[in-house]
Amino acid sequence: MSGSSFGKIFKISTFGESHGKGVGVIIDGVTPGIEIDAADIQFQLNRRKPGQSDITTPRKESDQIHILSGVFEGKTTGTPMGLVLYNKDQISSDYNAIKDLFRPGHADFTYLQKYGIRDHKGSGRASGRETSARVAAGAVAMKILKEKGVQITAYTIKAAGISCENRDLSVIEHNKMRACDSQAAAKMEQKIRALAEEGDSAGGIIECIATGVAPGLGEPVFEKIDAELARAVMSLGAVKAVEFGLGFACVDMKGSEHNDSMDSQGFKTNNAGGMIGGITTGEDIIFRIAVKPTSSISKPQNTVDVSGEEQIIRTEGRHDPCICPRIVPVVEAMTALVLIDMYKREAALLS
Amino acid sequence: MSGSSFGKIFKISTFGESHGKGVGVIIDGVTPGIEIDAADIQFQLNRRKPGQSDITTPRKESDQIHILSGVFEGKTTGTPMGLVLYNKDQISSDYNAIKDLFRPGHADFTYLQKYGIRDHKGSGRASGRETSARVAAGAVAMKILKEKGVQITAYTIKAAGISCENRDLSVIEHNKMRACDSQAAAKMEQKIRALAEEGDSAGGIIECIATGVAPGLGEPVFEKIDAELARAVMSLGAVKAVEFGLGFACVDMKGSEHNDSMDSQGFKTNNAGGMIGGITTGEDIIFRIAVKPTSSISKPQNTVDVSGEEQIIRTEGRHDPCICPRIVPVVEAMTALVLIDMYKREAALLS
Amino acid sequence: MSGSSFGKIFKISTFGESHGKGVGVIIDGVTPGIEIDAADIQFQLNRRKPGQSDITTPRKESDQIHILSGVFEGKTTGTPMGLVLYNKDQISSDYNAIKDLFRPGHADFTYLQKYGIRDHKGSGRASGRETSARVAAGAVAMKILKEKGVQITAYTIKAAGISCENRDLSVIEHNKMRACDSQAAAKMEQKIRALAEEGDSAGGIIECIATGVAPGLGEPVFEKIDAELARAVMSLGAVKAVEFGLGFACVDMKGSEHNDSMDSQGFKTNNAGGMIGGITTGEDIIFRIAVKPTSSISKPQNTVDVSGEEQIIRTEGRHDPCICPRIVPVVEAMTALVLIDMYKREAALLS
Amino acid sequence: MSGSSFGKIFKISTFGESHGKGVGVIIDGVTPGIEIDAADIQFQLNRRKPGQSDITTPRKESDQIHILSGVFEGKTTGTPMGLVLYNKDQISSDYNAIKDLFRPGHADFTYLQKYGIRDHKGSGRASGRETSARVAAGAVAMKILKEKGVQITAYTIKAAGISCENRDLSVIEHNKMRACDSQAAAKMEQKIRALAEEGDSAGGIIECIATGVAPGLGEPVFEKIDAELARAVMSLGAVKAVEFGLGFACVDMKGSEHNDSMDSQGFKTNNAGGMIGGITTGEDIIFRIAVKPTSSISKPQNTVDVSGEEQIIRTEGRHDPCICPRIVPVVEAMTALVLIDMYKREAALLS
Repeated sequence: MSGSSFGKIFKISTFGESHGKGVGVIIDGVTPGIEIDAADIQFQLNRRKPGQSDITTPRKESDQIHILSGVFEGKTTGTPMGLVLYNKDQISSDYNAIKDLFRPGHADFTYLQKYGIRDHKGSGRASGRETSARVAAGAVAMKILKEKGVQITAYTIKAAGISCENRDLSVIEHNKMRACDSQAAAKMEQKIRALAEEGDSAGGIIECIATGVAPGLGEPVFEKIDAELARAVMSLGAVKAVEFGLGFACVDMKGSEHNDSMDSQGFKTNNAGGMIGGITTGEDIIFRIAVKPTSSISKPQNTVDVSGEEQIIRTEGRHDPCICPRIVPVVEAMTALVLIDMYKREAALLS
Repeated sequence: MSGSSFGKIFKISTFGESHGKGVGVIIDGVTPGIEIDAADIQFQLNRRKPGQSDITTPRKESDQIHILSGVFEGKTTGTPMGLVLYNKDQISSDYNAIKDLFRPGHADFTYLQKYGIRDHKGSGRASGRETSARVAAGAVAMKILKEKGVQITAYTIKAAGISCENRDLSVIEHNKMRACDSQAAAKMEQKIRALAEEGDSAGGIIECIATGVAPGLGEPVFEKIDAELARAVMSLGAVKAVEFGLGFACVDMKGSEHNDSMDSQGFKTNNAGGMIGGITTGEDIIFRIAVKPTSSISKPQNTVDVSGEEQIIRTEGRHDPCICPRIVPVVEAMTALVLIDMYKREAALLS
Repeated sequence: MSGSSFGKIFKISTFGESHGKGVGVIIDGVTPGIEIDAADIQFQLNRRKPGQSDITTPRKESDQIHILSGVFEGKTTGTPMGLVLYNKDQISSDYNAIKDLFRPGHADFTYLQKYGIRDHKGSGRASGRETSARVAAGAVAMKILKEKGVQITAYTIKAAGISCENRDLSVIEHNKMRACDSQAAAKMEQKIRALAEEGDSAGGIIECIATGVAPGLGEPVFEKIDAELARAVMSLGAVKAVEFGLGFACVDMKGSEHNDSMDSQGFKTNNAGGMIGGITTGEDIIFRIAVKPTSSISKPQNTVDVSGEEQIIRTEGRHDPCICPRIVPVVEAMTALVLIDMYKREAALLS
Repeated sequence: MSGSSFGKIFKISTFGESHGKGVGVIIDGVTPGIEIDAADIQFQLNRRKPGQSDITTPRKESDQIHILSGVFEGKTTGTPMGLVLYNKDQISSDYNAIKDLFRPGHADFTYLQKYGIRDHKGSGRASGRETSARVAAGAVAMKILKEKGVQITAYTIKAAGISCENRDLSVIEHNKMRACDSQAAAKMEQKIRALAEEGDSAGGIIECIATGVAPGLGEPVFEKIDAELARAVMSLGAVKAVEFGLGFACVDMKGSEHNDSMDSQGFKTNNAGGMIGGITTGEDIIFRIAVKPTSSISKPQNTVDVSGEEQIIRTEGRHDPCICPRIVPVVEAMTALVLIDMYKREAALLS
């Protein structure tokens, strides 16, 4: 039932799968009078698209945005924006070899269980391509957030077992990993290339920081800012964990160590990661997510076919050996979608 | 705006704060004809209530459940259940000393930022007492889930720096920590008592397993089973992180290691923790949460008052030195609320 | 599923039935800092309660409001308000005679069809008593709307076949019918008394006017102001029709007659009833509803019992021979709930 | 905020305006495995499209449906269906003459009030063209409802002051008015042609019957079947009133006359129109709506421009002199959308 909408006021609804005619999104609740053009959206889509570098999939996708409604003479009208990205023609024969096989780590098995439909062409709705609709919607959210002084930045801090040693946000867009440490990035790339040659893949950790966020955002007791951000990023196929502020590290601390105390200048630390009681403090929002190693690998794996017979599968095709660089803009988009909705909800509460 | 409801079909709405007349919940969308009595609910509330042992707060709360509607001759009618727990009279003078101070790690500051209201009596809506409404609703969900063969069990696996060495679910309700290892539990208790004497507190990790869950549950692309579970548990005040299956450990693995392959008997491993693509596989759902050390400690801490003046605060009163034992039934309740809703949503999709 | 909530931002969830422990409502999304006390709510409840006059049911109900949460030192906190009205002990033997019979015009048959539960004590959730929760919530909405300059007034314009000849709002609260014409009211009362003596009942028409409403409210294309108001009042058990502005009379007019033209002073007419394209114009909102004759009558009627056997039924007990006077505050409450939500939604859109 | 979605489980979200690139709809929550092809949808769109006869607007619109997602090998997959109708190129100069004028009866004024945007090209989002997205979604709903035995039929019963004398459903699609009486239809056409020549327009009444609907549908207390149907049809721009069963006629009846009594064969009458207490009885659902005379007329009218100056306006262009024939499929579509959602909600409740 109806899991393809996100947000309460700035609300998006998405459609589309990898093998169909296209993917798209309707954004309802857009502030009227905001200047927007297709280039604002295209910029973010280009950060997500395949083929950016030799460590992303060389697969070609048409990621050109089409704005079908909701903008008049360069400004949002306040009515729903309809955005579409048309798919290029898919060569369905690519998938014939695995037509009846469940790819390990893929949603083939669970989609069949849920819907009773075996849609073997690409990953259908479970394809990463679905996230381009999120990125498009997030780009619109970011335009409005920017006017409020909010800046959202995500980046790789670990991949293929290699961690960033420092956090230099200026280098993120200058290395293929979108990592915050150029030297670590170089090592990650090297390691990932080696894994790709083996027909294998790597995971990593993405960190996201939002600065300039007003205090007072978040809707207790169920729709707290951290609860909503967690949901937002956990709804991405490759994400297996999320932590805020010090995250799991807090469990070994004493209360006297973990509590963020205050002085006349404000909070002295930000162990909490920008929220207390599910409401923003005005400090930076900081969280990290675990990105699993890409499921699609060309190494032979054990599996079964739809009739339960054991089989060996090799997922040929061109897959990202590590999804980290391309998930960065998606994480930013999901963060933007949560924040814009929370700003609007706070305005509604107080009015 | 309206953050006090949870669930789409089996939908709960809660109210109440620690200092008011009571806390409660309306459950809408309850399957009609389910046998239920107050004892089913009271049993779970007793697992959450204060004063269970010498390592929980000795504070007295009346946790007696009152069913105001929705049950007729011992069975649910399908109309909303109204459940209330009345508060005992609070001695408001208890809080006079900290009337104008922001307690570190507490939501005092953020609630004032959000609502513009300084409600100093207890933690108001941010009080842990709010979770008793969730436990009551969860108990009703569990009754229905039980008929579907679902069993949910949460337990402490780490606290105060001490980890369980084995996972023996039979001992959980037989130690004060609700840990899955009796020996580790004894050490945890000892360590926590020592911290309490220092006026300090400890954090920990809770693991939760749901068995017997049907495959096919979860609503892509935004309301995936893991996204909804993450939101559910991240909406608890003390929780700072959540991970599914191998969680953060997956980031250092190769795809060939992490993918759960299948043979004719089904999945050979469950690294994913019971879901792929946000839909249940039929394997056990497994996740872990990070519980921060209790914010309320009697050790002196630096803070400011509402006018920004620096002050020293000592949060007197009787607080849990470690929230782990009492959060266990709350985690189970939130899990039950997600699962029952997903069962009903799947039925709606297919009908 | 979950039909007991109303509103998106200022959101109410209700529970309770006539035979249970009580009825109540949670109001989520209340503007913080609004002065409110129980008397504000009680005033409206008293306008709805039974036993107001000799042409309403003499049944005794305890309509005393209890505020369980959401108010601190006389002001709303912005957290959910929990409001309860406890039922008086019901003498269930009252209903034994009709235990197995379907009362004509009553929801006995349809509730059994829907829920599979035969709850013969009173009308359960379908009882008019359920509307007291709406009135309580509406009273809170009205407090906030009053600060925005909105005034909502409903009144009987026709009952028992007798129409008001003039529309004098000053007399509404001074006659038992809450009609806008004292002389017509006197005739209505007389006619209704005669019907009551025959064991029969009467219907009528209620008109509602909201003045001082800002232009720009309503959320096309599905949640237009008229669509939401229609839903609000059609959700009352006795209402069978609703019309806005000239309503059904417009069908015989030409466009040139029906269109409200403008001059430099604004709209010259208000045939539309205060909205165009589902958005308020700033003119008075005007609508009318058809109230069916009370279903509960003591005259013998043909019916069947739960096993399908034909029976004669006499609904003894003390029922309103005409529901018009008591539905007036309920219509006002529903109108207030729609308007407050729309004000908040407009604020959210523009922010 | 976000008024462009409809339905809870079978949920549609629409976008698009008359002057943009197109209009469309995402349908989320579609039952998987339903056979569907574009022709099923196109059939209904053709019933709504302009230029059907000499008494509808001769305006040309491209109403060709494009299915972008959610269907695989001729069957629904259970994932969102994305449907788009591209607009033909609009000649914007058509609207230059009225660029700054408020058209009487149109939403120009209220859209400007709400959004602060003056979008003069066509009626933008308030255009009747928006309803083609509803018709497309409704066609999908009807496919599923048909398998449940539900049949929905709407038709004109009055237009331009002329009423149908008999109710012959077999003639509806054989006259230009979609009326249920061929002779009355002929008179209506004649009258409407005369009005059109004067540059004026006519209103009418549409009746809708749904047969084969299961008993037990509808979600008290706010989302009753009649409340949801009322909202559905009142969300159409031209509709000013709705009544169920006997509707406004019930107000002059006694309870003993209006109550539908039962015998061993079931209900003896259907005065209620197919629902009691907001839940379907299993009898035919019957309701009627008032359709206002078309606002766009070429007769000169008084109005003001955006700066408040008084002006004379003539809405040139090609408008429907009576919207009745073309609103029929829209009313059926909205009815289908309510019913499919209620079927699914009932399944969710009971599961």
